[in-house]
Amino acid sequence: MKKKALIILSGGLDSTVLAHDIVARGKKELAAVSFDYGQKHRRELECAAAQAKILGIEHTILPLPFINDLFDSALLQSGGTLPEGHYEDDNMKQTVVPNRNMIMLSIAAGLAISQGRTELFYGAHGGDHAIYPDCRPAFVEAMKEVLALCDWQKLKLHVPFLHDNKAQIVALGQHLKVDFARTWTCYAGKERPCGKCGSCVERREAFALNKLQDPLF
Amino acid sequence: MKKKALIILSGGLDSTVLAHDIVARGKKELAAVSFDYGQKHRRELECAAAQAKILGIEHTILPLPFINDLFDSALLQSGGTLPEGHYEDDNMKQTVVPNRNMIMLSIAAGLAISQGRTELFYGAHGGDHAIYPDCRPAFVEAMKEVLALCDWQKLKLHVPFLHDNKAQIVALGQHLKVDFARTWTCYAGKERPCGKCGSCVERREAFALNKLQDPLF
Repeated sequence: MKKKALIILSGGLDSTVLAHDIVARGKKELAAVSFDYGQKHRRELECAAAQAKILGIEHTILPLPFINDLFDSALLQSGGTLPEGHYEDDNMKQTVVPNRNMIMLSIAAGLAISQGRTELFYGAHGGDHAIYPDCRPAFVEAMKEVLALCDWQKLKLHVPFLHDNKAQIVALGQHLKVDFARTWTCYAGKERPCGKCGSCVERREAFALNKLQDPLF
Repeated sequence: MKKKALIILSGGLDSTVLAHDIVARGKKELAAVSFDYGQKHRRELECAAAQAKILGIEHTILPLPFINDLFDSALLQSGGTLPEGHYEDDNMKQTVVPNRNMIMLSIAAGLAISQGRTELFYGAHGGDHAIYPDCRPAFVEAMKEVLALCDWQKLKLHVPFLHDNKAQIVALGQHLKVDFARTWTCYAGKERPCGKCGSCVERREAFALNKLQDPLF
């Protein structure tokens, strides 16, 4: 029998490719959860819904309005202007939403347990480490431990892209025939990707390294 | 300068006594956060607000409606009948809300970081261990580690009652002159405490061991 698993699907490139990879391997009964936390780039949620439909998996979008109301980040609608530039630049730290990933993981864990699921997938990747404390391998290791203890049944956390870079994820997505036009990466929250924020810069580099045309540009 | 701290204040006995203890010691600039997650015993939130007012501390109540909508627990308005009996009885496990404490801790952590607070207080106590996986010392130790890693600044988790029993907490509350009439323990969600649920049974025992009259009974 397939193991029941839940993935945090943002609608971005990483979690979308991860969802396609899990489904392609055929060993899990997968469902997805996304979070509407007041991100400027809410457009990613439409992509998450579209990808879940393509994959034929159950999809839940949970609103977390308190994050936009009370937390401080340039990534949020309530926050300041989004910095432009490369991810390695220090000003990109303004796009950290305090403890966002732990909040998403803990809620996803509660949902997974309620649905009788025993595994949780999370798409953090190697390119995130320098800016986002809650994407670091040490954080992920500690989360694995705490998620194994949070219920009487063990919940297993998988973070398969933790040491991969974005170019490797694009290559896998291409191999899996992921519709990249239905993934959203830009943080700026406009109709079209800005091409200048750290997230856009990283995505463009990843496509360029694969000698691929990004359908969004 | 006082360190800035945040406490998860349910309005129950344990977190209320803990809040009074922290304020009495005078070493922290304390604020409180409570969660409205669809618990049958929403009445506890009125107690939390009253205690925060008595203590003169900032208090935020965050709604988490998705827990009642999607999670499975007899503690929730959406859940089945609440079991009666002693906490050590196995049927009390129906009152576990999957991963509730980790969800509350992770959101409180995000709020604390947004408010420039570096310490987080959580009132789990020794009597919770047998029923609630997310009150066990091993869980708390793992949470301490993950909360120290979730941001670029370390966030310190304090769980001072982790090895105390409820009778010791009542004794401390009495010493601190806590108004026990403004704490709420019963899970049943009625006008008056039911006296029969595990939570009521434990509270009554704790007052009896201190030879005190509980103002709620």
